[in-house]
Amino acid sequence: MALWLKENALDSDVAISTRVRLARNLAGIPFPHRIAGTQRAEQVKETAKRAFLRDGMDFSYQEIRGLSPINKTRLVEQHIISRELASGNEGAMILSPDESICVMIGEEDHYRLQCLRSGYDVDTAMKMAFELDKMLNKEAEYAFDPELGYLTSCPTNVGTGMRVSVMLHLPGLTLSGGIRGILSALGNFGVTARGCYGEGSEAAGDIYQISNQVTLGVSEKDIAKNLKTVVSQIIKKEREARNALLHNQGAEVKDRIWRSYGLLKYAWKMDTSEALSCISLVNMGVGLGIIEANTSDELYGLMMDIMPGMLSGEGRTAQDRDVVRARMIRNTIH
Amino acid sequence: MALWLKENALDSDVAISTRVRLARNLAGIPFPHRIAGTQRAEQVKETAKRAFLRDGMDFSYQEIRGLSPINKTRLVEQHIISRELASGNEGAMILSPDESICVMIGEEDHYRLQCLRSGYDVDTAMKMAFELDKMLNKEAEYAFDPELGYLTSCPTNVGTGMRVSVMLHLPGLTLSGGIRGILSALGNFGVTARGCYGEGSEAAGDIYQISNQVTLGVSEKDIAKNLKTVVSQIIKKEREARNALLHNQGAEVKDRIWRSYGLLKYAWKMDTSEALSCISLVNMGVGLGIIEANTSDELYGLMMDIMPGMLSGEGRTAQDRDVVRARMIRNTIH
Repeated sequence: MALWLKENALDSDVAISTRVRLARNLAGIPFPHRIAGTQRAEQVKETAKRAFLRDGMDFSYQEIRGLSPINKTRLVEQHIISRELASGNEGAMILSPDESICVMIGEEDHYRLQCLRSGYDVDTAMKMAFELDKMLNKEAEYAFDPELGYLTSCPTNVGTGMRVSVMLHLPGLTLSGGIRGILSALGNFGVTARGCYGEGSEAAGDIYQISNQVTLGVSEKDIAKNLKTVVSQIIKKEREARNALLHNQGAEVKDRIWRSYGLLKYAWKMDTSEALSCISLVNMGVGLGIIEANTSDELYGLMMDIMPGMLSGEGRTAQDRDVVRARMIRNTIH
Repeated sequence: MALWLKENALDSDVAISTRVRLARNLAGIPFPHRIAGTQRAEQVKETAKRAFLRDGMDFSYQEIRGLSPINKTRLVEQHIISRELASGNEGAMILSPDESICVMIGEEDHYRLQCLRSGYDVDTAMKMAFELDKMLNKEAEYAFDPELGYLTSCPTNVGTGMRVSVMLHLPGLTLSGGIRGILSALGNFGVTARGCYGEGSEAAGDIYQISNQVTLGVSEKDIAKNLKTVVSQIIKKEREARNALLHNQGAEVKDRIWRSYGLLKYAWKMDTSEALSCISLVNMGVGLGIIEANTSDELYGLMMDIMPGMLSGEGRTAQDRDVVRARMIRNTIH
């Protein structure tokens, strides 16, 4: 199970995790894709090491090229590093023991300071991220423009360089169809929704990542405040949708939840998409008190553990993975 | 559960039941549809009562018009009386305590002497039927032609008046597709296949009723011998199909069986067709040793118990029945 997932997180019936990510670059050094393999790429890494690998800190440093494929996949599927960082050979990362803090080095920007929290907890994630920022800033002179703010490789990050994301589990709004109206209205609030593995990924398991679209011309505080307003509203609507479903289509909803439970407990093989959708419904059932099963944290953890990459192994076919996945699920669901 | 279903029946992994039915009519009295409501219809009933309601015999007599709708439905769904007898008001029946023997009076013919056995047991069922025949013949002069044999209301029964049916559970041949070839070849052997509720009914739950087509110009012994040759062959092919499926598509088959088990154990509502198909697969799993669950007899009994008629009640909608059915199944499957 992902180490950063904690029990008793805030609003964990709906919110899986909160992530704050700051993009930072060193002044006077070209962006990563321009300096691959050069001495200056080393300089970027050394600066981060000086900032974070100190006495009393428990961070570890790891070059991406030193990671096994299975390890890379695990880190991506547990949302600890980005697919982009994992797919290159030049990058590195600095990790806290519980992997809730990750400094990605040499991804799109020199640094991506990332803090992950279980549940819905924007304030703590932001506080952690800015502590990291302060630590790094002691060793690094940032590329910063007084007019624009922090300069970044991609213009969409210029300004605060901050992206706040909350991962939400929305089976109620998905079943009721209310999700469509919400998704189409998000843009009006400067907020965007993606599937759980970022841009272009599908909302498997009814999981959506809600994050701020705008980083320029607004303060970090206002970005957070705006996102929190939207996310709190969605969480409220999701709870309402679940209760309305239970009230109006009780037998239908109970049936779908209990069938999902039965399949998770007994299927001999199961693909990722069906597994996510069944776990999603069982989690909703736990939230509604229809079913006693694993806690939400355990179910969110299981959702990550059963991703294809996590289950790949020497010579394993997709069919083999489906069998291994089903066994893992059978052994976990109670 | 149907009273006539017994434990440890012969070949019960594939064969649900064996039925022998003899059509008999009284000489000099028109067929039932011509004498409805007349004194002569009473005479037909009285003759049967004299034959079967004697000291030392444990038979009971019942007029159809005295049965509640739910009782009629139960008798039909447990294969004890025909839909035709149940739907009229004129008929009657004589039943043994375990309902394995039923004399239907005033259906299409004056008498239908029926013996039901669990599993595959043509010899015993025939022996029982001819004992009934002998008892009735003591009181009744049959309509009999030395050339043709027993005369019956429908020409397809003329001759021996005998129909031998074996109800088979063929999920292996259904899954492998082998069933099609078998069904189309049956005609060549003077044998026919129907769904489990007789002519025109679908093969729900992969259950087929195999019976002799020809009753004229062959002896009872030859009819039985021929049918047994065909049925033994189908049972053999079904076992081969199940083993081949397990060997060649083990994960697929196990998955379907275990999923069916999971749905039976946890679904909140379930329609007849899905329930039959899931019970059918679990029964195959029990036969193959893949799963430990209820015995075949229990599963066949459950198949009858969950028919719509058995679950209908005061003001119950189809949706209510699906909920009641699922609950009954959950409480039965172990």
